[in-house]
Amino acid sequence: MLPPLRVGIAGLGTVGLAVLRLLDRRAAALAAMSGRMIEIAAVSAKNPAKDRGADLSRYEWFDDPVKLAAAPQIDLFVELIGGADGAAHDAVAAALRSGKSVVTANKALLAKHGIALAKLAEEKQAALAFEASVAGSIPIVKTLREALSGNVVQRVYGILNGTCNYILSRMETEALSFDDCLSEAQRLGYAEADPSFDIGGQDTAHKLAVLTALAFGTMIDPDAVAIEGISSITLADIKAADELGYRIKLLGVANRTSGGIEQRVHPTMVPRSSAIAQVMGVTNAVTVDADAVHELTLMGPGAGGEATASAVVADIVDIAKGLRQPPLGLPVSSLKPLERAPIQMHEGGYYIRLSVYDRPGAAAAIATRMAECNISLESIMQRRPWGDKAKRAEAVPVILITHATYEKSVRQALASVVADGFIAENPQVIRIEREQF
Amino acid sequence: MLPPLRVGIAGLGTVGLAVLRLLDRRAAALAAMSGRMIEIAAVSAKNPAKDRGADLSRYEWFDDPVKLAAAPQIDLFVELIGGADGAAHDAVAAALRSGKSVVTANKALLAKHGIALAKLAEEKQAALAFEASVAGSIPIVKTLREALSGNVVQRVYGILNGTCNYILSRMETEALSFDDCLSEAQRLGYAEADPSFDIGGQDTAHKLAVLTALAFGTMIDPDAVAIEGISSITLADIKAADELGYRIKLLGVANRTSGGIEQRVHPTMVPRSSAIAQVMGVTNAVTVDADAVHELTLMGPGAGGEATASAVVADIVDIAKGLRQPPLGLPVSSLKPLERAPIQMHEGGYYIRLSVYDRPGAAAAIATRMAECNISLESIMQRRPWGDKAKRAEAVPVILITHATYEKSVRQALASVVADGFIAENPQVIRIEREQF
Repeated sequence: MLPPLRVGIAGLGTVGLAVLRLLDRRAAALAAMSGRMIEIAAVSAKNPAKDRGADLSRYEWFDDPVKLAAAPQIDLFVELIGGADGAAHDAVAAALRSGKSVVTANKALLAKHGIALAKLAEEKQAALAFEASVAGSIPIVKTLREALSGNVVQRVYGILNGTCNYILSRMETEALSFDDCLSEAQRLGYAEADPSFDIGGQDTAHKLAVLTALAFGTMIDPDAVAIEGISSITLADIKAADELGYRIKLLGVANRTSGGIEQRVHPTMVPRSSAIAQVMGVTNAVTVDADAVHELTLMGPGAGGEATASAVVADIVDIAKGLRQPPLGLPVSSLKPLERAPIQMHEGGYYIRLSVYDRPGAAAAIATRMAECNISLESIMQRRPWGDKAKRAEAVPVILITHATYEKSVRQALASVVADGFIAENPQVIRIEREQF
Repeated sequence: MLPPLRVGIAGLGTVGLAVLRLLDRRAAALAAMSGRMIEIAAVSAKNPAKDRGADLSRYEWFDDPVKLAAAPQIDLFVELIGGADGAAHDAVAAALRSGKSVVTANKALLAKHGIALAKLAEEKQAALAFEASVAGSIPIVKTLREALSGNVVQRVYGILNGTCNYILSRMETEALSFDDCLSEAQRLGYAEADPSFDIGGQDTAHKLAVLTALAFGTMIDPDAVAIEGISSITLADIKAADELGYRIKLLGVANRTSGGIEQRVHPTMVPRSSAIAQVMGVTNAVTVDADAVHELTLMGPGAGGEATASAVVADIVDIAKGLRQPPLGLPVSSLKPLERAPIQMHEGGYYIRLSVYDRPGAAAAIATRMAECNISLESIMQRRPWGDKAKRAEAVPVILITHATYEKSVRQALASVVADGFIAENPQVIRIEREQF
């Protein structure tokens, strides 16, 4: 048997404590699997005095995670501090620089510094593993990096934020407003007190940027992600989606197009019959379209202490077995720059909800503006009959579903529609994402 | 860079040729990932003269796969011959004995000889990889063996045979009979000329036996799998399932119970809202219930040349990277014997379809027999009203859904019902499987 793998853990929140618990609970099995004991040698967190409901006296305590990261007492550093910079970044860099392997759940860190850290890990022949950083318990990093190595990926997309999916699910099943569902999610601990990072789509964008690099063999380019959050989604959209055979999900989508790789995060209409549409509540799901496997979908809990810890432990065990591979699948020197496909060139179907003053010529004007931009319509849905004179002062909701067209065409047509003055409020636009196979 | 990994492939059917194609197509990327070239050094198949639509002249040809397996020209042997014994077994054993790593897609071989071969691989410090043997492109072996190492698994279940799922899907969507759907599947190449191994459930049982060992850390015990095929499923069952909110799928289920581990393959009612119920056509899906991740589901193509080859290539690349681990996750010496939970002790809900002669006392007798065996009924569905005198000669379909009860209770109650003489044909019994979370 090899000597024990000595692990240091920085960050003792829900996930950190769950990692300690799983390593304890599964100690014998993990040792048998990896041919060596996995020992917690030391831990670090902000407040040594805090009661965490766990006996930490067995482990050496470090006030400074950076000191722990470089300490000779450990072989592997687990970073669960969070944040793209500061202590998390300094500690991970310090561990790698001293030749130690690193396991992290930190998507913000990877989105911003992933390339530099992967390069450092390669130079030092250390492992840098981050399964827990994307979609919690779902082994999507392992799947893209290892299981799909024989494939050229066409598209990867998924529900990567449980908070948003919970809110959208509840809006649909309970017919509640966005604000009510957000409050409920906060009460239940599914949303932060300041939820803007989740509902604004930034959290999904970080995760997507990491998946994109793994899927397409490119540099990580978080700034190229086009981001829209879910706060503009109304009950009217949810209901219209339902009537049209769709559900609305916040998706992160990375897609190989003739103009480069699209990365986008936005509320999306997905066909109700698709696997991804079935994913309700805080569950995450990721689908990969690739040439050999066609379509592979993984779904499971995207957050939660033990679910995330499960991914951290799997990474630790891989490293204990001696697995060394380029952190991003390909060595950084082989990664291509990400050729950005601008969102204006996105091609797909669109849902457009207009609030139209019921005046003569309105319908004709809208149809003309769409035709001018070469947009053909798959369906038009109008909630109240036109022409009821008593109601002409009120705006009537009109919903258009387009055939595949370009984002810039939609934007141009809608600018004209707005300028024509028939519209009571800004148009609502939701992109449609279809299954490929 | 390391010296090239020299691969020998035995079996040049659809999957073998697809492996050659993928290794060619992805050569540069795979070399970058694994830090060494992956070279096809030699191949073997039955008929060297057959036109396979591919240029094989680049590779050394072996008539005898066993000679190829032990040949000094190769480092890794890929077995795509098939069959539990004979050439496939001899070649794999020969390769391992000579210290070469092996990749195989052969579930029959693994179900029968997996333990002995894993032991041999461990002794020789060779890799034995078999992702392609279960559920084609779906990385369920990797997920159970690596991604879920921190978990104690409670249950693993799935749709593991595309032929059966295709037939059941078509029966539902097209309202066609079993025989018609089977003929169609044969015409489309989704079913063999002799389909008995698929529709009888044996193929699913082999795959389940392998998953069980990986999930629970036990020996492989294919003889302990209780097997029922799908040929008894009628359109009446499919329609009744639909009305009751279920779909019928052929599932392989391995479940940890207080009496040991259940392994069973049978047509199963699954809630229509469950992820697994959405899986239609030849697609496969596997769900794992485990303590840390709760519920993880993977779905994708379960067969097809390139989809299966994708799994073979992933295994080759893992080995090229130097990954060595016990083939079954735990070393064979750490595997526990599988404590068999007899199917008679299975506990769950049941769908029972009876063909009842419309006579006074029939309903009361059936209800009494159920009560005698402590079976409580969740619902009773009767297709035609009782008591229509003109129809008394005909049997009336009556469908019962039970609350959780024991298999032996159901069998005992039904034996009494049959003995009472109110029943026109043998009862149809389909077990119900529910999501845990």
